[in-house]
Amino acid sequence: MIRTLYYISDGTGISAETLGRSLITQFEQITFQSYTLPYIDTEAKAYAAIAKINQTYAEDHTRPIIFSTIVKPEIRHIIASSQGLVIDFFHSFIGALEEELQMPAQSAVGLSHAVINREKYNTRIDAVDFSLQCDDGINLKAYGMADIILLGASRTGKTPTCLYLAMQYGIRAANFPLTDEDLQNPMLPKVLAPHRNKLFGLIISAERLHQIRMKRLPDSRYASMAQCETELNVIAQMYRLEGVPHLNSTELSIEELSTRILALMDLKR
Amino acid sequence: MIRTLYYISDGTGISAETLGRSLITQFEQITFQSYTLPYIDTEAKAYAAIAKINQTYAEDHTRPIIFSTIVKPEIRHIIASSQGLVIDFFHSFIGALEEELQMPAQSAVGLSHAVINREKYNTRIDAVDFSLQCDDGINLKAYGMADIILLGASRTGKTPTCLYLAMQYGIRAANFPLTDEDLQNPMLPKVLAPHRNKLFGLIISAERLHQIRMKRLPDSRYASMAQCETELNVIAQMYRLEGVPHLNSTELSIEELSTRILALMDLKR
Repeated sequence: MIRTLYYISDGTGISAETLGRSLITQFEQITFQSYTLPYIDTEAKAYAAIAKINQTYAEDHTRPIIFSTIVKPEIRHIIASSQGLVIDFFHSFIGALEEELQMPAQSAVGLSHAVINREKYNTRIDAVDFSLQCDDGINLKAYGMADIILLGASRTGKTPTCLYLAMQYGIRAANFPLTDEDLQNPMLPKVLAPHRNKLFGLIISAERLHQIRMKRLPDSRYASMAQCETELNVIAQMYRLEGVPHLNSTELSIEELSTRILALMDLKR
Repeated sequence: MIRTLYYISDGTGISAETLGRSLITQFEQITFQSYTLPYIDTEAKAYAAIAKINQTYAEDHTRPIIFSTIVKPEIRHIIASSQGLVIDFFHSFIGALEEELQMPAQSAVGLSHAVINREKYNTRIDAVDFSLQCDDGINLKAYGMADIILLGASRTGKTPTCLYLAMQYGIRAANFPLTDEDLQNPMLPKVLAPHRNKLFGLIISAERLHQIRMKRLPDSRYASMAQCETELNVIAQMYRLEGVPHLNSTELSIEELSTRILALMDLKR
């Protein structure tokens, strides 16, 4: 069974997608196809949107499901008149908040992902710069300014996790690859000693690491199962001996890794 | 007036934060302080969470506001018994979806930001790699594999926008800096000609660019107002003459830039 979804917003559509996806993951038997209609901020665009929705209904013979974060009442009413099932995020909760806070909502569109606080926004962009400047063991002299330093074998997910931490939370995340040279014994590389309280390790299953490396350098020693196992054994021992907090990234997304790391390292998100 | 918020989830907390923030931006007169409690997936953790919430109530003398995406009924009931106002994103909509889809929800926790579809997830991670490999005009030979190529003066937001497009949407986004050399005349650099249909330009106000560059290289020619104005004038002329679609990034977040670019370039998100 295939059902069609629409994410509709007068802004970026990111919140509508977040809401909808978190709900539909609970129905894995169904295949969903989805369309995002962002920036629906005029009546003309709203009428064009419901024309699409009603067209889908005519083709699918089942109601499209609409996840909407439309703020403006006049636009919302147009969307509500479509033939889809409308899950109206804003309208469902804003009344309770208005009552609790004893004031009317502003009904201003496009605020969710806008630059409202320039300083806070700059912190995120500066953190992305920092992560790039301190990627893959370069620029050790900047480690004093890091909030966290991720360790791990090559291709265990350090870089994307650092970038996610930076982009979403403004965390200055450096990363340091543990290479053959560092793995002659299970001791922490000396250069990391001054930053011990910022270190966080990643580990991964040898099978998965082998898979990932084979895509990059097929049939190399670097990608061989034996090499992956050897590196990971020494690294696991190092984390244990040196008391480095760590996580296994094999089954975790960068979102899961990042939020678990924040919690474990007690970093403010 | 300060009000305290809790974002509570049995997963990462990302959906609770995203949805809660999109509501509270509608009340800008109020200062909110917030705490995220992720991975509340046992009754013991739920009781610890409501102890914190009730403690806040005792200190603030106003009800904390709780944005919850808790899936499991037994955990949800515990949170509902706190002294806060609970805005329950999951429970509010799941019934309507169960009815529409004519099946019960799985009530499985932690699915929203998990790796459910490994191939789809890998697309995002591979796109992040691609963006890093094609950052700042390097690796032109890979442009054939790009979904989009962002152009602009140095420090107009190309790199973080490319990384956001990659990380969130799996879009392979390269970026090419338009430097002094390229700006002797308002013609597209020759190397870009084969990729004309993938080009998207960023522009920015001279004041803002001057500010950003002054932070990086204070009192340099590069950061001077005159230099910023000259570069931006030629670039604006180039976009116009060469028909390069473009956006002004001065007031836009990377989320806004990315979602507008996807819409304008008709890229699937």
